[in-house]
Amino acid sequence: MTWIQKEITLAERPRGFHLITDEILQNVPEIQSIKIGLVHLLLKHTSASLSLNENFDPDVRKDMENYFLNSVKENETYYLHKSEGADDMPAHIKSSILGTTLTLPVTNGQINLGTWQGIYLCEHRNYGGARRVLITLEGE
Amino acid sequence: MTWIQKEITLAERPRGFHLITDEILQNVPEIQSIKIGLVHLLLKHTSASLSLNENFDPDVRKDMENYFLNSVKENETYYLHKSEGADDMPAHIKSSILGTTLTLPVTNGQINLGTWQGIYLCEHRNYGGARRVLITLEGE
Amino acid sequence: MTWIQKEITLAERPRGFHLITDEILQNVPEIQSIKIGLVHLLLKHTSASLSLNENFDPDVRKDMENYFLNSVKENETYYLHKSEGADDMPAHIKSSILGTTLTLPVTNGQINLGTWQGIYLCEHRNYGGARRVLITLEGE
Repeated sequence: MTWIQKEITLAERPRGFHLITDEILQNVPEIQSIKIGLVHLLLKHTSASLSLNENFDPDVRKDMENYFLNSVKENETYYLHKSEGADDMPAHIKSSILGTTLTLPVTNGQINLGTWQGIYLCEHRNYGGARRVLITLEGE
Repeated sequence: MTWIQKEITLAERPRGFHLITDEILQNVPEIQSIKIGLVHLLLKHTSASLSLNENFDPDVRKDMENYFLNSVKENETYYLHKSEGADDMPAHIKSSILGTTLTLPVTNGQINLGTWQGIYLCEHRNYGGARRVLITLEGE
Repeated sequence: MTWIQKEITLAERPRGFHLITDEILQNVPEIQSIKIGLVHLLLKHTSASLSLNENFDPDVRKDMENYFLNSVKENETYYLHKSEGADDMPAHIKSSILGTTLTLPVTNGQINLGTWQGIYLCEHRNYGGARRVLITLEGE
């Protein structure tokens, strides 16, 4: 039984949805020693998200950004939490809708996703900075 | 410590929300040997979802479908990803909102959910086909 | 390798979003003996949710409640599941959007979240009663 944990800092990205599968995997070569296991990701922030979705057509990521821009609006009259900018409260809401944790299966030394699935970093702030991810790997 | 992993194919279902608790459990009789553990489910697709929700009244599942039909519309003018049909981009969005993974507790050989909780397959495509689920079971 | 599982009952809370990190942790002092691990939470209900979000400004929790009040409306004409009150079907929908499970990393005897992250109980019913959480702790 193996337990490995490490915190990584992702390259900074602009607002929008980004495919980060390769960047995550480059940071945990230890996955190669796991026959059956799980890898858990925690994005340690409250204004960005992690999600699994389509890994091929970049238009999907653009449409995602536009969907959430329209469905979680800036400057709602009822917002009380406004001191950090108009993009901040919508970012918190999107972060809870999409979530900041992912648990993914590992099989024979590789992450085992569907053919079209990839890991998204969903950056909801205009200037979110470099985001940190705590990776926990367990398996045998 | 036990680790078991298997990929199953669910019976094909029409668009909508479906209760699949029994179909999942029939595929992992190995749960019966686990005293304390977790079972992880990954739906290996990007246009359907897994969720926990009410297991008794089928009207809840119909209302869920109608809520998401209204809140994630087809044919938004800003959609760029349209080549696979009007139901495709909304299906990707719903998949990220609801999620494609679930981790559930196991106690004394049984999945341990609330009295009214069941596992939903949320089929967002008009013709999604048979969906695959990778099941990872760990425990002692 | 340690496996611990216990079911707790949270203090009853009014409708809205509530920070429950401390109440959860008080119930699992066993975390202190784990060097690397994961703690899994299942809220055993279908009309409330668990989420990670901002732990400092209470206005964030108020804005969350108002966002979901507006985006998942009561009394939609298409709702069929109405017998348990106007707040019931919206509560089921919010429960699936936000989710009822969380898996969180443990490091050196402590839950390891981002500086500004806390665990929310999202109570979607007007009178939801005391909610139960099944906690599963694993690690070494």
